[in-house]
Amino acid sequence: MLRKVRTDLALEVRESFPQDDVEIRGVALTEEYDEKSKIRVTTVVIKDEKGANAMKKPIGTYITIEAPELSKSDDSYHKSVSDVIAQNLMKLSGELKKEEILVVGLGNREVTPDALGPQVVDNLFVTRHLINEYGTEFSERNRLGNVSAISPGVMAQTGMEAQEIIKGIVKETKPKLLIVIDALASRSVSRLNTTVQITDTGISPGSGVGNNRKALNEETLGTKTIALGIPTVVDAATIVADTLEKYMQNSGFTEEEVFKFISEVNEQHIDNMFVTPKNIDDSIKRISYTVSEALNSCFSQTV
Amino acid sequence: MLRKVRTDLALEVRESFPQDDVEIRGVALTEEYDEKSKIRVTTVVIKDEKGANAMKKPIGTYITIEAPELSKSDDSYHKSVSDVIAQNLMKLSGELKKEEILVVGLGNREVTPDALGPQVVDNLFVTRHLINEYGTEFSERNRLGNVSAISPGVMAQTGMEAQEIIKGIVKETKPKLLIVIDALASRSVSRLNTTVQITDTGISPGSGVGNNRKALNEETLGTKTIALGIPTVVDAATIVADTLEKYMQNSGFTEEEVFKFISEVNEQHIDNMFVTPKNIDDSIKRISYTVSEALNSCFSQTV
Amino acid sequence: MLRKVRTDLALEVRESFPQDDVEIRGVALTEEYDEKSKIRVTTVVIKDEKGANAMKKPIGTYITIEAPELSKSDDSYHKSVSDVIAQNLMKLSGELKKEEILVVGLGNREVTPDALGPQVVDNLFVTRHLINEYGTEFSERNRLGNVSAISPGVMAQTGMEAQEIIKGIVKETKPKLLIVIDALASRSVSRLNTTVQITDTGISPGSGVGNNRKALNEETLGTKTIALGIPTVVDAATIVADTLEKYMQNSGFTEEEVFKFISEVNEQHIDNMFVTPKNIDDSIKRISYTVSEALNSCFSQTV
Amino acid sequence: MLRKVRTDLALEVRESFPQDDVEIRGVALTEEYDEKSKIRVTTVVIKDEKGANAMKKPIGTYITIEAPELSKSDDSYHKSVSDVIAQNLMKLSGELKKEEILVVGLGNREVTPDALGPQVVDNLFVTRHLINEYGTEFSERNRLGNVSAISPGVMAQTGMEAQEIIKGIVKETKPKLLIVIDALASRSVSRLNTTVQITDTGISPGSGVGNNRKALNEETLGTKTIALGIPTVVDAATIVADTLEKYMQNSGFTEEEVFKFISEVNEQHIDNMFVTPKNIDDSIKRISYTVSEALNSCFSQTV
Repeated sequence: MLRKVRTDLALEVRESFPQDDVEIRGVALTEEYDEKSKIRVTTVVIKDEKGANAMKKPIGTYITIEAPELSKSDDSYHKSVSDVIAQNLMKLSGELKKEEILVVGLGNREVTPDALGPQVVDNLFVTRHLINEYGTEFSERNRLGNVSAISPGVMAQTGMEAQEIIKGIVKETKPKLLIVIDALASRSVSRLNTTVQITDTGISPGSGVGNNRKALNEETLGTKTIALGIPTVVDAATIVADTLEKYMQNSGFTEEEVFKFISEVNEQHIDNMFVTPKNIDDSIKRISYTVSEALNSCFSQTV
Repeated sequence: MLRKVRTDLALEVRESFPQDDVEIRGVALTEEYDEKSKIRVTTVVIKDEKGANAMKKPIGTYITIEAPELSKSDDSYHKSVSDVIAQNLMKLSGELKKEEILVVGLGNREVTPDALGPQVVDNLFVTRHLINEYGTEFSERNRLGNVSAISPGVMAQTGMEAQEIIKGIVKETKPKLLIVIDALASRSVSRLNTTVQITDTGISPGSGVGNNRKALNEETLGTKTIALGIPTVVDAATIVADTLEKYMQNSGFTEEEVFKFISEVNEQHIDNMFVTPKNIDDSIKRISYTVSEALNSCFSQTV
Repeated sequence: MLRKVRTDLALEVRESFPQDDVEIRGVALTEEYDEKSKIRVTTVVIKDEKGANAMKKPIGTYITIEAPELSKSDDSYHKSVSDVIAQNLMKLSGELKKEEILVVGLGNREVTPDALGPQVVDNLFVTRHLINEYGTEFSERNRLGNVSAISPGVMAQTGMEAQEIIKGIVKETKPKLLIVIDALASRSVSRLNTTVQITDTGISPGSGVGNNRKALNEETLGTKTIALGIPTVVDAATIVADTLEKYMQNSGFTEEEVFKFISEVNEQHIDNMFVTPKNIDDSIKRISYTVSEALNSCFSQTV
Repeated sequence: MLRKVRTDLALEVRESFPQDDVEIRGVALTEEYDEKSKIRVTTVVIKDEKGANAMKKPIGTYITIEAPELSKSDDSYHKSVSDVIAQNLMKLSGELKKEEILVVGLGNREVTPDALGPQVVDNLFVTRHLINEYGTEFSERNRLGNVSAISPGVMAQTGMEAQEIIKGIVKETKPKLLIVIDALASRSVSRLNTTVQITDTGISPGSGVGNNRKALNEETLGTKTIALGIPTVVDAATIVADTLEKYMQNSGFTEEEVFKFISEVNEQHIDNMFVTPKNIDDSIKRISYTVSEALNSCFSQTV
């Protein structure tokens, strides 16, 4: 690879390998496709260090739900996607879904494509305080899970790493499972607002858009951490570089020539820019509702 | 007193004593009045347990700034009030103002009169991450304080006590001083959006409006905690009961009769209601800016 | 009556008559009650000038839907209420529901209990521009109504009467039917967020909370105007005065004495204050969604 | 030119001419540069049809204020820019600045870089209703202009063209001058949030980002219309195409080859995408305040 892959999606890393149909050692890939709903679920399991090195991602399970109509307005389609999200969350959370759960909505609520996490938290059915007040008898009768939630804001707003804030809260309130929601960066505009990645390896907030804030995962937080992310932006430098790279390689340029030109492009101050669709407000509003419904049905009303 | 005083203001507690001009033991009161700006600063110092018992408030200093025009739009008046707030914050924070400071904006940003804390945080000049990145040489050159900030949300949104969230963050990020901003409840509509209370005894969030969430103070958080509060609501039950009480006492009713009737009133489901002015959006917007300017000038650009 | 009734609800005017079970001439009242959902629908028809004088409301139909659980969170209950609203909207709009419709969300989106109208518009399925672009064949195939919408803001924000703004837009875009959504003032806290009034006589924005902005109705706008309002506040002066009045009358005071005291109360600057529940953000969010779903199902997907 | 120039800025059109230093007939260009503040003011006057054809912009005056630090946080710099904006607004509005003025904030408040117009209106000092209530004696004593304002929303929210809404309101309220505020599209990321364009030719909302909504100008609205725009986005297709074009021309490709490749790029669904900086929330908040201060000082407190 000529330069670091600006993507948060395991699937895109997998796709970037030239040997598309060759199996990578230490990495298992399974795929389900629902003809009717056109929803495709791909599960990448990185089983060992070999796989982790190849994928440049930690050992763990990465579930990708591709729902091409997700960015559009169709209530029954969103219901289907919500159900698929809930099933996969249940799979990854196992018995912990019946325990105390803290949902973290990462991102900046003031920047539309980054507001996914906070908006999911806004729609969430939060119950921890009710159970503390009325007891578990109350929650069992009403089939409620024990859910708390927070939108910590971004470092430019708080002066703190999301990790510092969450670590402190986790130590104080001792949830058994963390669900971290975040808007991701993708390499491809076709993935925007149509793809959901769920992984039990946690998240590096902002890593996909070039920041270096610290990881949120079981190792750093001391609690099992499932991350649910949806790409809502493409890095502007990536979109320009990808287009150029593809073009220049087709035109017979050498790797050095391509690399040199792309470096020049990146110097043009597009490093802190992102690309997002014009109707991003609609997509975020709709998708955040779909995700929060999935969380609500996963953690409450459990039999 | 017939029933618990629903007020967060030490000054109103003081005023509720019949012996208005008699000194209460253990309580010192000083007053400054600026003729030109019509800003009055009253400092109540509760010196010992005797004073604390009489006032039903913890030992400490309570500074009340009364600025009758604060709810109106007059930029130069707001500047004066901002300066007075900054001076009194400096007085209470002492040398700690040069250390790491965490500003907490309590309240619910979705309920206009309760959005004061979050809106102050929105306008704040947050610097901790910059100093972490560029070093103290950078902050000294630019005369920046070390400020971090968070708006944790209310329990109905998070399922957690504000105390739990703040305690965890304080343990993790170790600020030397906390400034907690909150919208308060007053007994009197004339105090709404015109009075600022600053105290080194911290705060009991929501206590003024009938909730029982736990205290935020040096004892519970392990860090010196200054609270800055502004009354933005009157409890609906209080306003009705106060009016009735005043009337019935004037009309020669016995204490029992008054008590009995007021109890009936309180049963009419106005217990979770508040009273606030119709133009509360303008007031909150303007005052939160005034407070954040005071904080910015107190903690940064210090000579 | 001792003083002007501060209510926007025809039902409360009706209830204020001493002769509760006597029929008022020119006014017809019918009632339906659904035992299971506990939803009561009362239809008051003011048939002539006599009725209009008695009720101090214009000739027309006033449908009141009382849904005691509406302020709570119960999705299936909200669906039932949404259906009842849609049925009654269909009744009042008749064949016009298939024509061009302009939905107006009155109120101030920055003041939580006044944000009902703007939030309904935010959730609305707006189609006029799609039909202008893709033609009626498109709307028929997709069973879409022709809906446009606007939240004009309040006079303190725009400097203009809502009437001026709407009148101008109506002249320019020529809708056949207006639906005006507004937060109302009630006399009783028990009505807050539990009552929906639908009327074909339009609305006087803010009239219930003491303002005098001009009416929005067929006479002033030249287009049939249905108003849908939900009480979200009680005037603070009203709540105090009503409690006092009730008390003083029970205690044998004369009308003059009551009147005199209430006048004193009103002078205490509570004239521009309102009373609203502490969880008003939740109620507004949920109810605005319920109303917008009713509008969506009434105007689109019509068979 | 190979393809249509996606820019709202007259200055960028001017710059796109190869003969940079040659005068274009019918177009006068003057420039002022303030060494200290680094603010450059360029005035392009399109004097006749010849100039209009060359520039592909209507006859009129286009003032461009380039303030390279505008996207940063420096209160005194923002004050300087605000003063320059006010001076140029006064120049274009002439005696009309003392008459009734309607400020229109175009754009979608839910999409951060498009929220400039609505946020300027939020900060505006609106007075028309006060003057209607208290008379011109009141406004003269307080040196108030007569200002009304509206943020109509975008077509996806209202189903109506901004033009239809504004036309209706103008006919009803008869302002003498319109000031239309809008977020623009630029060709260059270096212009984002650093350039202000003021013109007496009005605006075509969204034209810079590929939409075709109708113009807002004296011809369509019947009232003199000054537009104030600030580029906050670059069209994603433009940024990719510009980079490619520059590269390919340097590499000796023919015009046809360049054209063919760029067409392919544009087919990749990036046509409805925009590029914007990650800290766009801060920039919009700060700049909207700067613009509203300029409007406030231009129209009120005039001697």
